[in-house]
Amino acid sequence: MTTICDDPDEFAEDQLAGWLALYADRVRGVTGGVVTLPTAGADPQVAVVVGGGSGHYPAFSGLVGPGLATGAVVGNVFTSPSAAQVYSVAKAADQGRGVVLSFGNYAGDTMNFGLAAERLRAGGTDTRIVVVTDDVASADEVDRRRGIAGDLAVFKAMGAAAAEGASLDEVERIGNRANERTRTIGVAFSGCTMPGADGPLFTVPDGHLGLGLGIHGEPGIRDVPLLPARELADLLVGRLLAERPDDATDTTRVAPVLNGLGDTKYEELFLLWGRIAPLLARAGLEVVEPKVGELVTSLDMGGCSLTLQWLDDELERLWRADAHTPAYRKAAAPLAALVPAAAVTEAAATATVVPAASRASRRAAATARDVVAAMDALLRSQEHELGRIDAVAGDGDHGRGMVKGIGAARRAVDGTDPAAGTGFLLGRAGEAWAAQAGGTSGVLWGAALEAFGAAIGDEVDEVTPALVVDAARAFADAIVQLGRAQRGDKTLLDALLPFVDALDEGVAAGSSLAEAWTAAATVAEVQATATAALTPRVGRARPLAEKSVGTPDAGAVSMSMVLTCTGAVLSARAGGPDHTTTAVHTEGVHA
Amino acid sequence: MTTICDDPDEFAEDQLAGWLALYADRVRGVTGGVVTLPTAGADPQVAVVVGGGSGHYPAFSGLVGPGLATGAVVGNVFTSPSAAQVYSVAKAADQGRGVVLSFGNYAGDTMNFGLAAERLRAGGTDTRIVVVTDDVASADEVDRRRGIAGDLAVFKAMGAAAAEGASLDEVERIGNRANERTRTIGVAFSGCTMPGADGPLFTVPDGHLGLGLGIHGEPGIRDVPLLPARELADLLVGRLLAERPDDATDTTRVAPVLNGLGDTKYEELFLLWGRIAPLLARAGLEVVEPKVGELVTSLDMGGCSLTLQWLDDELERLWRADAHTPAYRKAAAPLAALVPAAAVTEAAATATVVPAASRASRRAAATARDVVAAMDALLRSQEHELGRIDAVAGDGDHGRGMVKGIGAARRAVDGTDPAAGTGFLLGRAGEAWAAQAGGTSGVLWGAALEAFGAAIGDEVDEVTPALVVDAARAFADAIVQLGRAQRGDKTLLDALLPFVDALDEGVAAGSSLAEAWTAAATVAEVQATATAALTPRVGRARPLAEKSVGTPDAGAVSMSMVLTCTGAVLSARAGGPDHTTTAVHTEGVHA
Repeated sequence: MTTICDDPDEFAEDQLAGWLALYADRVRGVTGGVVTLPTAGADPQVAVVVGGGSGHYPAFSGLVGPGLATGAVVGNVFTSPSAAQVYSVAKAADQGRGVVLSFGNYAGDTMNFGLAAERLRAGGTDTRIVVVTDDVASADEVDRRRGIAGDLAVFKAMGAAAAEGASLDEVERIGNRANERTRTIGVAFSGCTMPGADGPLFTVPDGHLGLGLGIHGEPGIRDVPLLPARELADLLVGRLLAERPDDATDTTRVAPVLNGLGDTKYEELFLLWGRIAPLLARAGLEVVEPKVGELVTSLDMGGCSLTLQWLDDELERLWRADAHTPAYRKAAAPLAALVPAAAVTEAAATATVVPAASRASRRAAATARDVVAAMDALLRSQEHELGRIDAVAGDGDHGRGMVKGIGAARRAVDGTDPAAGTGFLLGRAGEAWAAQAGGTSGVLWGAALEAFGAAIGDEVDEVTPALVVDAARAFADAIVQLGRAQRGDKTLLDALLPFVDALDEGVAAGSSLAEAWTAAATVAEVQATATAALTPRVGRARPLAEKSVGTPDAGAVSMSMVLTCTGAVLSARAGGPDHTTTAVHTEGVHA
Repeated sequence: MTTICDDPDEFAEDQLAGWLALYADRVRGVTGGVVTLPTAGADPQVAVVVGGGSGHYPAFSGLVGPGLATGAVVGNVFTSPSAAQVYSVAKAADQGRGVVLSFGNYAGDTMNFGLAAERLRAGGTDTRIVVVTDDVASADEVDRRRGIAGDLAVFKAMGAAAAEGASLDEVERIGNRANERTRTIGVAFSGCTMPGADGPLFTVPDGHLGLGLGIHGEPGIRDVPLLPARELADLLVGRLLAERPDDATDTTRVAPVLNGLGDTKYEELFLLWGRIAPLLARAGLEVVEPKVGELVTSLDMGGCSLTLQWLDDELERLWRADAHTPAYRKAAAPLAALVPAAAVTEAAATATVVPAASRASRRAAATARDVVAAMDALLRSQEHELGRIDAVAGDGDHGRGMVKGIGAARRAVDGTDPAAGTGFLLGRAGEAWAAQAGGTSGVLWGAALEAFGAAIGDEVDEVTPALVVDAARAFADAIVQLGRAQRGDKTLLDALLPFVDALDEGVAAGSSLAEAWTAAATVAEVQATATAALTPRVGRARPLAEKSVGTPDAGAVSMSMVLTCTGAVLSARAGGPDHTTTAVHTEGVHA
């Protein structure tokens, strides 16, 4: 959605005015677009004037500066600039050595840049045209293809050549060669919305992607089912390898550009790059300074494209050259000064000796293993519900965090010697939970489990109900100390502290552990639900205190779920007819 | 929507692996995160270790490099890293001069970084903590506030100080001072979607924005009606000026950061900056190297935030200092070498002398003025419908382009001397249309109007129906020559060429101009509708040829609309009872 706007008709002009104010130290606005400020004392160079519509930032104005474009013509959103605009920018950019006009292959751009070139030539300015045609999906014939994110790779070659002092003939030749060796394939996940419009220009059917995207909100050439990242990488790389230019069979070096269209974010692109890089290596290709990020966008469109420029020595030198533009900056010197990553050997984990454990502690450890397994199944089944509750006034990560934590704990428990006692076992589980879940709940749950285990210990003769009460209190104390919260703050303590008190009372009154635990867990459930009425005073929901009222605390809810689940395991092990571990696994606890 | 993913549980690890592969020339992956490669021969420096959850790129790993952070701890999506991760990264980053841990103020981060600091100190590493609390919306008490995009401004001060060789005490002092003088206010337009989730963490009610956003998908503190950019700028600046830190009354210099959350794109941010900058100037503030872009994101969340760091001499020096990280690069030298923008005087438009015109040409010009006015009203009313048709297989900009063009033409016509003849008047109109609309339709319509006007001329004795037929043919010829299309290619020619033939026949058969035009326009409408069956061979819809079938060509449709509208004006001027200009304005043509 394009949201920030005053008059939609003036969007392109308004954004350019703001951009010019921002970069007044390096560019100059002229009728129709922008030109770079010249470098003092530098020899005149061939002007490389790029352009097209707005909505593609950093294309095109963001690419103006030393080492890249000399000027950019800025049209309306997704609309070619007029011939008059192109002419004006080219005149301002011209340093007396001629002008190359370069743009993606669209009818409007071809006409308007073409008319401007005629007018420039008529006025005595030697003017050449380099059209970018990198989009392999848009046509079989190379010269009918559209220009998309390959724009960057072609402009970069010309800009670097011009900065080196190349002649107009040379810059034109290099631009055409760069274009001939540059190929792109893209996919669209969702459409973009024009300033002032109510809805997107197109939609991709749910669960699909559009193969062969356009960068002006054109839908994909063909909708195919959405792919996981590995298969998406296969698709993109496979298609580009099949489109290897005829004259690029002599090289094994490529400059890749993995471009995000706007809504597809950095982490997604990095993840995808992690899948693409090995495929390129497997194809025998060496990647040279890959560029991953948002380089030619399409407003807030969802999608990405992969570009490969097949390098020769000249193109590689130009690709690696420094550039200093608002949106594309490259400086070799600071990197050259870095010490290459030495083979770093991280301290190997010291082998842990499992301390000898008493029979009683080992039996309790077996119960603990069952509880961890049941918690794992429970929390997985409740992940989305916990996330939903947390998202009302928090950040929605509680379900995910609990699943990460219990998963780590379960793996730790499963990997621990069966001879381990409860203290050692829960120590390992807590450590794994805290280390791998992170977050607030991770550190609290990890410390609490460790404390519970330490209270039972490995050498105990008998795990009495009273000892379990002590352990439960140690569990709660660890959380109180780390989290510095108290009852009524709307945290998990609002479920946990009443539970411990009720467990204590039940055991003192002579109930069995399973009975007392189950009864106390009911108290915890009631108290967790009652947190809905509270206003948060610490933790995740505090800044959104008002929104939080009416919704229980997610941490209190998950705590009560786990306590109830644990009661069910204890009852099952005690022989209660209605509670089997299996039932706990499949039913969950809170309906 | 977060779309690119394999296993949602492994999203954070997978994206980090891809990122490390990408930047292996400058960073090193360690357990829990990343550290910068050291610069050869450089003195050891204080380690500045930043961090938090994933999903905020370029925070936090993108900020690691010379001049900024020494290391970054990378947690799960929106989740604090664990104490073990923090400890591991800090140990790897430590160069023997101590460590500053810095992060936004969230409970999980505070606990985990705090535990790690204790462990580091216990192991003999002098460790300090600087907590970022810039979000003015999150609490009244400064030390309870969350850390959001102000992270960058605080980290930058410490990273630059460490690079200068400052001591641990100094870096800590500078970090705390930078935080005390850094304030942020943000707004949310839409929620973000966690990897693997079906829907966003929250939604902002339609037509609203959430004031006081969180960067973990927390909704805004309060929903208020959506504001135009000018008022949004007022809101953000006003709130920050009201939150000027007590000790920052001595300065008029601020370092601004206008941050996009993910879905709110660059052009929107530039537009907003264009509104913010004058407000800061009006408040007597001087902005120092403002930074506008995506710096602390929240996956694909829609929204933005404005940060001001109130500078003193020390903080200004640190803010301006060079930095070379994957996502934040600053180098003063290339900019210092640029020649400041001279006051450029663009050639003043030469005053145009309106050529003398015959009475007949002036009368035809009056009709042309009516036609242009009617076209303007018509195309405005049909803008969205034309965009919708164009978006099926094109880029959806046709309605916008036509409105821009006719608006420019109408302003040109309105500003032209009433004594002008048809040739001069339509020449001005066509020039304005092409210059201001840009795009394919802009250049074609501009050239066509000029050709029509030239065919009538300024000196004609009588504008006969036959002359109008000649002019219509000149209009069409201009388009054929520029666009190099022919009938059947699915362009506006499929409506226009049959129209010209029909007009010619009607006039030859003795019909009045109004009658012949109206009848020919009906032919154009039929032919425009019939383009639905065609497969595009040139122009906007060619790459999406299959999708285009079943939908008429938007250019043919708008052409037939305009022709029909023109017929209505001619009929009205000829005295036809059912066709008034007003009716044309309000009804449009295609229902």
